Amino acid sequence: MDNGKLAAAKQALDYMPNQGVIGLGSGSTASIFIELLSQKVQAEQLDIMCVATSTQSQKLGAQLGLNVVDIDEVDRIDITVDGADEVDPDLNGIKGGGAALLFEKIVALNSNRNIWVVDPSKEHKRLGQFKLPIEVIKFGSHHLYRHFEKLGLSPSYRQTNGEYLLTDSNNYIIDVDVSGVDDLTALATQLDQLTGVVEHGLFLNICDELIVGGQ
Amino acid sequence: MDNGKLAAAKQALDYMPNQGVIGLGSGSTASIFIELLSQKVQAEQLDIMCVATSTQSQKLGAQLGLNVVDIDEVDRIDITVDGADEVDPDLNGIKGGGAALLFEKIVALNSNRNIWVVDPSKEHKRLGQFKLPIEVIKFGSHHLYRHFEKLGLSPSYRQTNGEYLLTDSNNYIIDVDVSGVDDLTALATQLDQLTGVVEHGLFLNICDELIVGGQ
Repeated sequence: MDNGKLAAAKQALDYMPNQGVIGLGSGSTASIFIELLSQKVQAEQLDIMCVATSTQSQKLGAQLGLNVVDIDEVDRIDITVDGADEVDPDLNGIKGGGAALLFEKIVALNSNRNIWVVDPSKEHKRLGQFKLPIEVIKFGSHHLYRHFEKLGLSPSYRQTNGEYLLTDSNNYIIDVDVSGVDDLTALATQLDQLTGVVEHGLFLNICDELIVGGQ
Repeated sequence: MDNGKLAAAKQALDYMPNQGVIGLGSGSTASIFIELLSQKVQAEQLDIMCVATSTQSQKLGAQLGLNVVDIDEVDRIDITVDGADEVDPDLNGIKGGGAALLFEKIVALNSNRNIWVVDPSKEHKRLGQFKLPIEVIKFGSHHLYRHFEKLGLSPSYRQTNGEYLLTDSNNYIIDVDVSGVDDLTALATQLDQLTGVVEHGLFLNICDELIVGGQ
Protein backbone atom coordinates (compact mmCIF):
# COMPACT_ATOMS: atom_id res chain seq x y z
CA MET A 1 0.00 0.00 0.00
CA ASP A 2 1.26 3.48 -0.92
CA ASN A 3 2.51 5.24 2.22
CA GLY A 4 1.45 8.75 1.20
CA LYS A 5 -2.07 7.59 0.42
CA LEU A 6 -2.33 5.57 3.63
CA ALA A 7 -1.07 8.47 5.75
CA ALA A 8 -3.60 10.85 4.18
CA ALA A 9 -6.49 8.42 4.61
CA LYS A 10 -5.56 7.81 8.25
CA GLN A 11 -5.50 11.52 8.99
CA ALA A 12 -8.97 11.96 7.49
CA LEU A 13 -10.35 9.58 10.12
CA ASP A 14 -9.77 12.26 12.76
CA TYR A 15 -12.44 14.40 11.12
CA MET A 16 -15.14 11.73 11.39
CA PRO A 17 -18.09 12.50 13.64
CA ASN A 18 -19.56 9.85 15.96
CA GLN A 19 -22.76 9.94 14.02
CA GLY A 20 -23.93 11.35 10.74
CA VAL A 21 -23.71 10.87 7.01
CA ILE A 22 -20.34 10.38 5.32
CA GLY A 23 -19.70 10.66 1.59
CA LEU A 24 -17.41 7.94 0.22
CA GLY A 25 -15.13 9.06 -2.57
CA SER A 26 -13.81 6.96 -5.42
CA GLY A 27 -10.28 6.04 -6.42
CA SER A 28 -7.30 4.47 -4.68
CA THR A 29 -6.82 6.86 -1.74
CA ALA A 30 -10.55 7.09 -1.08
CA SER A 31 -10.71 3.29 -1.10
CA ILE A 32 -8.07 3.12 1.63
CA PHE A 33 -10.14 5.60 3.61
CA ILE A 34 -13.28 3.48 3.18
CA GLU A 35 -11.41 0.49 4.60
CA LEU A 36 -10.15 2.45 7.62
CA LEU A 37 -13.58 3.98 8.18
CA SER A 38 -15.28 0.60 8.20
CA GLN A 39 -12.82 -0.63 10.85
CA LYS A 40 -13.43 2.45 12.99
CA VAL A 41 -17.22 2.28 12.68
CA GLN A 42 -17.18 -1.40 13.68
CA ALA A 43 -14.70 -1.01 16.52
CA GLU A 44 -16.43 2.01 18.04
CA GLN A 45 -20.00 1.03 17.06
CA LEU A 46 -20.59 4.43 15.45
CA ASP A 47 -23.97 5.51 14.06
CA ILE A 48 -22.77 6.30 10.54
CA MET A 49 -24.64 6.21 7.23
CA CYS A 50 -22.70 6.48 4.00
CA VAL A 51 -23.42 7.78 0.50
CA ALA A 52 -21.23 6.49 -2.34
CA THR A 53 -19.86 8.44 -5.32
CA SER A 54 -19.61 5.45 -7.67
CA THR A 55 -20.72 1.88 -8.15
CA GLN A 56 -17.20 0.92 -7.11
CA SER A 57 -17.25 2.76 -3.75
CA GLN A 58 -20.84 1.61 -3.17
CA LYS A 59 -19.78 -2.03 -3.54
CA LEU A 60 -16.63 -1.63 -1.48
CA GLY A 61 -18.45 0.11 1.37
CA ALA A 62 -21.24 -2.46 1.46
CA GLN A 63 -18.76 -5.36 1.35
CA LEU A 64 -16.94 -3.90 4.34
CA GLY A 65 -20.17 -3.69 6.32
CA LEU A 66 -20.84 0.05 6.07
CA ASN A 67 -24.45 1.21 5.90
CA VAL A 68 -24.43 2.61 2.35
CA VAL A 69 -27.69 4.34 1.38
CA ASP A 70 -28.84 6.17 -1.73
CA ILE A 71 -28.08 9.89 -1.79
CA ASP A 72 -31.80 10.60 -2.12
CA GLU A 73 -32.46 8.93 1.25
CA VAL A 74 -30.53 11.61 3.14
CA ASP A 75 -31.17 15.31 3.59
CA ARG A 76 -27.57 16.30 3.62
CA ILE A 77 -24.09 14.77 3.81
CA ASP A 78 -21.95 15.89 6.77
CA ILE A 79 -18.48 15.19 5.43
CA THR A 80 -17.22 13.71 2.19
CA VAL A 81 -13.73 12.28 1.90
CA ASP A 82 -12.55 11.96 -1.67
CA GLY A 83 -9.33 11.92 -3.65
CA ALA A 84 -8.30 14.26 -6.46
CA ASP A 85 -6.17 13.84 -9.54
CA GLU A 86 -4.62 17.26 -9.24
CA VAL A 87 -4.95 20.10 -6.74
CA ASP A 88 -3.56 23.63 -6.70
CA PRO A 89 -2.64 25.90 -3.75
CA ASP A 90 -6.17 27.42 -3.73
CA LEU A 91 -7.62 23.90 -3.28
CA ASN A 92 -9.12 23.89 -6.73
CA GLY A 93 -8.73 20.57 -8.47
CA ILE A 94 -9.29 18.25 -11.37
CA LYS A 95 -11.15 15.01 -10.72
CA GLY A 96 -12.49 12.22 -12.86
CA GLY A 97 -9.52 9.96 -13.51
CA GLY A 98 -11.78 7.13 -12.35
CA ALA A 99 -14.67 8.40 -14.51
CA ALA A 100 -16.83 9.04 -11.43
CA LEU A 101 -16.74 12.85 -11.62
CA LEU A 102 -20.49 13.32 -12.02
CA PHE A 103 -21.59 11.47 -8.88
CA GLU A 104 -18.54 12.81 -7.05
CA LYS A 105 -19.57 16.37 -7.81
CA ILE A 106 -23.22 15.76 -6.90
CA VAL A 107 -22.16 14.27 -3.55
CA ALA A 108 -19.62 17.06 -2.93
CA LEU A 109 -22.14 19.81 -3.60
CA ASN A 110 -24.58 18.20 -1.15
CA SER A 111 -21.91 17.95 1.55
CA ASN A 112 -21.35 20.41 4.39
CA ARG A 113 -17.63 19.77 4.25
CA ASN A 114 -15.33 18.27 1.65
CA ILE A 115 -11.97 16.77 2.58
CA TRP A 116 -9.58 15.67 -0.13
CA VAL A 117 -6.95 13.06 0.62
CA VAL A 118 -4.02 12.92 -1.78
CA ASP A 119 -0.40 11.90 -1.97
CA PRO A 120 2.16 14.64 -2.68
CA SER A 121 2.33 13.84 -6.42
CA LYS A 122 -1.14 15.39 -6.88
CA GLU A 123 -0.10 18.88 -5.78
CA HIS A 124 0.65 21.33 -8.57
CA LYS A 125 1.06 25.09 -8.63
CA ARG A 126 -1.13 25.22 -11.69
CA LEU A 127 -3.79 22.77 -12.89
CA GLY A 128 -3.53 21.14 -16.28
CA GLN A 129 -0.85 18.46 -16.20
CA PHE A 130 -3.73 16.04 -15.68
CA LYS A 131 -6.19 15.90 -18.55
CA LEU A 132 -9.61 17.36 -17.76
CA PRO A 133 -12.40 14.76 -18.12
CA ILE A 134 -15.68 15.96 -19.61
CA GLU A 135 -18.72 13.67 -19.33
CA VAL A 136 -20.90 13.98 -22.43
CA ILE A 137 -24.17 12.56 -23.74
CA LYS A 138 -23.39 9.93 -26.39
CA PHE A 139 -25.87 11.44 -28.86
CA GLY A 140 -24.04 14.11 -30.86
CA SER A 141 -20.80 13.79 -28.91
CA HIS A 142 -18.65 13.92 -32.06
CA HIS A 143 -19.89 17.48 -32.56
CA LEU A 144 -18.69 18.41 -29.07
CA TYR A 145 -15.40 16.64 -29.80
CA ARG A 146 -14.89 18.82 -32.86
CA HIS A 147 -15.84 21.90 -30.87
CA PHE A 148 -13.13 21.06 -28.31
CA GLU A 149 -10.67 20.58 -31.16
CA LYS A 150 -11.47 24.06 -32.46
CA LEU A 151 -10.89 25.45 -28.97
CA GLY A 152 -7.38 23.94 -29.08
CA LEU A 153 -8.08 21.48 -26.26
CA SER A 154 -6.71 18.34 -28.03
CA PRO A 155 -9.67 16.11 -27.07
CA SER A 156 -9.60 12.33 -26.90
CA TYR A 157 -12.38 9.88 -26.08
CA ARG A 158 -11.55 7.78 -23.06
CA GLN A 159 -11.46 4.14 -24.07
CA THR A 160 -11.35 0.79 -22.35
CA ASN A 161 -10.61 -2.47 -24.18
CA GLY A 162 -10.83 -0.65 -27.50
CA GLU A 163 -14.36 0.66 -26.85
CA TYR A 164 -15.47 4.09 -25.65
CA LEU A 165 -15.68 3.96 -21.87
CA LEU A 166 -19.18 4.26 -20.41
CA THR A 167 -19.75 6.08 -17.11
CA ASP A 168 -22.15 4.94 -14.39
CA SER A 169 -24.75 7.12 -16.16
CA ASN A 170 -24.03 5.55 -19.56
CA ASN A 171 -22.27 8.61 -20.97
CA TYR A 172 -18.88 9.03 -22.67
CA ILE A 173 -15.82 10.79 -21.29
CA ILE A 174 -13.81 13.16 -23.49
CA ASP A 175 -10.46 14.11 -21.94
CA VAL A 176 -9.11 17.52 -22.90
CA ASP A 177 -5.81 19.33 -22.38
CA VAL A 178 -6.26 22.52 -20.35
CA SER A 179 -2.56 23.19 -19.74
CA GLY A 180 -2.78 26.19 -22.06
CA VAL A 181 -5.97 27.63 -20.52
CA ASP A 182 -5.38 30.63 -18.28
CA ASP A 183 -8.88 31.18 -16.89
CA LEU A 184 -10.26 27.83 -15.73
CA THR A 185 -13.26 29.45 -14.04
CA ALA A 186 -14.32 30.88 -17.39
CA LEU A 187 -13.77 27.50 -19.03
CA ALA A 188 -15.92 25.81 -16.37
CA THR A 189 -18.77 28.26 -17.03
CA GLN A 190 -18.44 27.73 -20.76
CA LEU A 191 -18.55 23.93 -20.38
CA ASP A 192 -21.55 24.13 -18.02
CA GLN A 193 -23.51 25.89 -20.72
CA LEU A 194 -22.71 23.50 -23.55
CA THR A 195 -25.65 21.30 -24.48
CA GLY A 196 -24.56 17.67 -24.35
CA VAL A 197 -21.98 18.26 -21.63
CA VAL A 198 -23.28 16.53 -18.51
CA GLU A 199 -20.45 17.56 -16.20
CA HIS A 200 -16.72 18.23 -16.15
CA GLY A 201 -13.92 17.45 -13.75
CA LEU A 202 -13.10 21.02 -12.68
CA PHE A 203 -13.88 21.14 -8.96
CA LEU A 204 -13.53 24.82 -8.10
CA ASN A 205 -14.22 26.15 -4.59
CA ILE A 206 -15.41 22.73 -3.45
CA CYS A 207 -12.57 21.35 -1.31
CA ASP A 208 -12.59 22.72 2.26
CA GLU A 209 -9.61 20.81 3.61
CA LEU A 210 -6.70 19.14 1.88
CA ILE A 211 -4.78 16.31 3.51
CA VAL A 212 -1.51 15.48 1.82
CA GLY A 213 -0.05 12.19 3.03
CA GLY A 214 3.64 11.93 3.76
CA GLN A 215 4.18 15.60 4.46
CA MET B 1 -55.86 15.05 -38.30
CA ASP B 2 -55.67 18.52 -36.74
CA ASN B 3 -56.03 21.17 -39.47
CA GLY B 4 -53.71 23.74 -37.87
CA LYS B 5 -50.96 21.18 -37.45
CA LEU B 6 -51.40 19.82 -40.97
CA ALA B 7 -51.33 23.31 -42.49
CA ALA B 8 -48.14 24.19 -40.62
CA ALA B 9 -46.42 20.93 -41.57
CA LYS B 10 -47.39 21.40 -45.23
CA GLN B 11 -45.96 24.89 -45.29
CA ALA B 12 -42.65 23.68 -43.87
CA LEU B 13 -42.24 21.44 -46.94
CA ASP B 14 -41.63 24.57 -49.03
CA TYR B 15 -38.40 25.15 -47.15
CA MET B 16 -36.94 21.75 -47.98
CA PRO B 17 -33.84 21.69 -50.18
CA ASN B 18 -33.45 19.12 -52.98
CA GLN B 19 -30.54 17.59 -51.17
CA GLY B 20 -29.01 17.84 -47.74
CA VAL B 21 -29.54 16.85 -44.14
CA ILE B 22 -32.90 17.43 -42.45
CA GLY B 23 -33.52 17.26 -38.70
CA LEU B 24 -36.73 15.45 -37.77
CA GLY B 25 -38.51 16.88 -34.74
CA SER B 26 -40.63 14.99 -32.26
CA GLY B 27 -44.27 15.36 -31.30
CA SER B 28 -47.56 15.41 -33.18
CA THR B 29 -46.95 18.28 -35.63
CA ALA B 30 -43.40 17.15 -36.38
CA SER B 31 -44.76 13.64 -37.04
CA ILE B 32 -47.15 15.01 -39.65
CA PHE B 33 -44.22 16.80 -41.24
CA ILE B 34 -42.17 13.57 -41.31
CA GLU B 35 -45.01 11.85 -43.17
CA LEU B 36 -45.30 14.65 -45.72
CA LEU B 37 -41.52 14.80 -46.14
CA SER B 38 -41.27 11.07 -46.83
CA GLN B 39 -43.93 11.39 -49.55
CA LYS B 40 -42.09 14.30 -51.14
CA VAL B 41 -38.68 12.60 -51.02
CA GLN B 42 -40.12 9.48 -52.62
CA ALA B 43 -42.15 11.31 -55.27
CA GLU B 44 -39.32 13.62 -56.29
CA GLN B 45 -36.45 11.17 -55.63
CA LEU B 46 -34.63 13.72 -53.46
CA ASP B 47 -31.16 13.13 -52.05
CA ILE B 48 -32.06 13.72 -48.40
CA MET B 49 -30.50 12.31 -45.24
CA CYS B 50 -32.31 12.74 -41.92
CA VAL B 51 -31.26 13.00 -38.29
CA ALA B 52 -33.88 12.19 -35.64
CA THR B 53 -34.47 13.96 -32.33
CA SER B 54 -35.96 10.95 -30.53
CA THR B 55 -36.36 7.20 -30.73
CA GLN B 56 -39.93 7.91 -31.80
CA SER B 57 -39.05 10.14 -34.77
CA GLN B 58 -36.18 7.79 -35.69
CA LYS B 59 -38.59 4.87 -35.90
CA LEU B 60 -41.26 6.82 -37.75
CA GLY B 61 -38.81 8.19 -40.32
CA ALA B 62 -37.24 4.79 -40.96
CA GLN B 63 -40.66 3.11 -41.27
CA LEU B 64 -41.65 5.68 -43.89
CA GLY B 65 -38.51 4.94 -45.92
CA LEU B 66 -36.45 8.03 -45.04
CA ASN B 67 -32.69 7.62 -44.79
CA VAL B 68 -32.27 8.28 -41.04
CA VAL B 69 -28.64 8.39 -39.91
CA ASP B 70 -26.99 9.04 -36.57
CA ILE B 71 -26.22 12.68 -35.82
CA ASP B 72 -22.54 11.80 -35.52
CA GLU B 73 -22.47 10.65 -39.15
CA VAL B 74 -23.14 14.15 -40.48
CA ASP B 75 -21.06 17.31 -40.28
CA ARG B 76 -23.99 19.62 -39.99
CA ILE B 77 -27.79 19.66 -40.34
CA ASP B 78 -29.19 22.02 -42.97
CA ILE B 79 -32.72 22.52 -41.64
CA THR B 80 -34.57 21.09 -38.67
CA VAL B 81 -38.35 21.13 -38.51
CA ASP B 82 -39.70 20.66 -35.02
CA GLY B 83 -42.74 21.52 -32.95
CA ALA B 84 -42.87 23.54 -29.74
CA ASP B 85 -45.10 23.45 -26.70
CA GLU B 86 -45.16 27.19 -26.33
CA VAL B 87 -43.66 30.07 -28.30
CA ASP B 88 -43.55 33.80 -27.66
CA PRO B 89 -43.41 36.76 -30.12
CA ASP B 90 -39.57 36.74 -30.01
CA LEU B 91 -39.60 33.08 -31.14
CA ASN B 92 -38.35 31.86 -27.79
CA GLY B 93 -40.08 28.71 -26.65
CA ILE B 94 -40.58 25.88 -24.24
CA LYS B 95 -40.12 22.34 -25.52
CA GLY B 96 -40.04 18.91 -23.94
CA GLY B 97 -43.68 17.92 -23.61
CA GLY B 98 -42.67 14.69 -25.34
CA ALA B 99 -39.61 14.33 -23.10
CA ALA B 100 -37.24 14.61 -26.10
CA LEU B 101 -35.84 18.05 -25.23
CA LEU B 102 -32.22 16.93 -24.89
CA PHE B 103 -31.82 15.39 -28.34
CA GLU B 104 -34.05 18.12 -29.80
CA LYS B 105 -31.73 20.80 -28.45
CA ILE B 106 -28.57 18.98 -29.59
CA VAL B 107 -30.02 18.65 -33.11
CA ALA B 108 -31.23 22.27 -33.12
CA LEU B 109 -27.85 23.65 -32.08
CA ASN B 110 -26.16 21.67 -34.86
CA SER B 111 -28.62 22.96 -37.48
CA ASN B 112 -28.06 25.91 -39.79
CA ARG B 113 -31.75 26.76 -39.65
CA ASN B 114 -34.55 25.84 -37.27
CA ILE B 115 -38.18 25.97 -38.32
CA TRP B 116 -40.91 25.43 -35.77
CA VAL B 117 -44.32 24.24 -36.87
CA VAL B 118 -47.15 24.84 -34.41
CA ASP B 119 -50.86 25.30 -34.26
CA PRO B 120 -52.19 28.66 -33.00
CA SER B 121 -52.80 27.32 -29.45
CA LYS B 122 -49.02 27.29 -28.84
CA GLU B 123 -48.58 31.04 -29.28
CA HIS B 124 -48.40 33.06 -26.07
CA LYS B 125 -47.32 36.60 -25.33
CA ARG B 126 -45.36 35.31 -22.38
CA LEU B 127 -43.92 31.85 -21.74
CA GLY B 128 -44.93 29.87 -18.69
CA GLN B 129 -48.42 28.52 -19.13
CA PHE B 130 -46.71 25.31 -20.18
CA LYS B 131 -44.58 23.69 -17.48
CA LEU B 132 -40.85 23.82 -18.13
CA PRO B 133 -39.32 20.32 -18.33
CA ILE B 134 -35.89 19.85 -16.78
CA GLU B 135 -33.99 16.65 -17.57
CA VAL B 136 -31.97 15.51 -14.55
CA ILE B 137 -29.57 12.72 -13.65
CA LYS B 138 -31.39 10.16 -11.47
CA PHE B 139 -28.65 10.13 -8.85
CA GLY B 140 -29.34 12.91 -6.36
CA SER B 141 -32.38 14.23 -8.21
CA HIS B 142 -34.42 14.63 -5.00
CA HIS B 143 -31.91 17.28 -3.92
CA LEU B 144 -32.51 19.20 -7.16
CA TYR B 145 -36.26 18.78 -6.63
CA ARG B 146 -35.99 20.39 -3.21
CA HIS B 147 -33.82 23.15 -4.66
CA PHE B 148 -36.55 23.91 -7.23
CA GLU B 149 -39.11 23.93 -4.40
CA LYS B 150 -37.05 26.51 -2.55
CA LEU B 151 -36.92 28.63 -5.72
CA GLY B 152 -40.73 28.60 -5.75
CA LEU B 153 -40.96 26.63 -8.98
CA SER B 154 -43.51 24.00 -7.74
CA PRO B 155 -41.64 21.01 -9.18
CA SER B 156 -43.16 17.66 -10.04
CA TYR B 157 -41.55 14.51 -11.38
CA ARG B 158 -43.02 13.48 -14.69
CA GLN B 159 -44.57 10.04 -14.35
CA THR B 160 -45.91 7.36 -16.62
CA ASN B 161 -47.91 4.37 -15.37
CA GLY B 162 -47.14 5.33 -11.80
CA GLU B 163 -43.36 5.27 -12.33
CA TYR B 164 -40.96 8.13 -12.94
CA LEU B 165 -40.69 8.62 -16.69
CA LEU B 166 -37.28 7.78 -18.20
CA THR B 167 -35.94 9.79 -21.14
CA ASP B 168 -34.08 8.31 -24.11
CA SER B 169 -30.89 8.92 -22.08
CA ASN B 170 -32.29 7.19 -18.99
CA ASN B 171 -32.76 10.39 -16.99
CA TYR B 172 -35.77 11.79 -15.11
CA ILE B 173 -37.85 14.83 -16.04
CA ILE B 174 -38.85 17.36 -13.39
CA ASP B 175 -41.50 19.81 -14.63
CA VAL B 176 -41.45 23.25 -13.02
CA ASP B 177 -43.74 26.26 -13.08
CA VAL B 178 -42.02 29.32 -14.54
CA SER B 179 -45.12 31.49 -14.88
CA GLY B 180 -43.83 33.70 -12.08
CA VAL B 181 -40.28 34.01 -13.44
CA ASP B 182 -39.56 37.36 -15.09
CA ASP B 183 -36.08 36.72 -16.48
CA LEU B 184 -36.09 33.37 -18.27
CA THR B 185 -32.62 33.97 -19.76
CA ALA B 186 -31.22 34.25 -16.26
CA LEU B 187 -33.10 31.11 -15.22
CA ALA B 188 -31.69 29.23 -18.22
CA THR B 189 -28.14 30.20 -17.25
CA GLN B 190 -28.79 29.19 -13.64
CA LEU B 191 -30.16 25.80 -14.70
CA ASP B 192 -27.25 25.20 -17.11
CA GLN B 193 -24.83 25.56 -14.21
CA LEU B 194 -26.62 23.20 -11.82
CA THR B 195 -24.81 19.90 -11.40
CA GLY B 196 -27.23 17.07 -12.14
CA VAL B 197 -29.28 19.10 -14.61
CA VAL B 198 -28.64 17.58 -18.03
CA GLU B 199 -30.75 20.03 -20.02
CA HIS B 200 -33.91 22.11 -19.82
CA GLY B 201 -36.71 22.94 -22.21
CA LEU B 202 -36.03 26.65 -22.59
CA PHE B 203 -35.13 27.13 -26.27
CA LEU B 204 -33.98 30.74 -26.43
CA ASN B 205 -32.69 32.29 -29.67
CA ILE B 206 -32.89 28.94 -31.44
CA CYS B 207 -35.97 29.18 -33.69
CA ASP B 208 -35.30 31.05 -36.95
CA GLU B 209 -38.72 30.73 -38.54
CA LEU B 210 -42.12 30.04 -37.02
CA ILE B 211 -44.93 28.53 -39.04
CA VAL B 212 -48.34 28.76 -37.41
CA GLY B 213 -50.91 26.58 -39.11
CA GLY B 214 -54.39 27.94 -39.74
CA GLN B 215 -53.38 31.57 -39.82
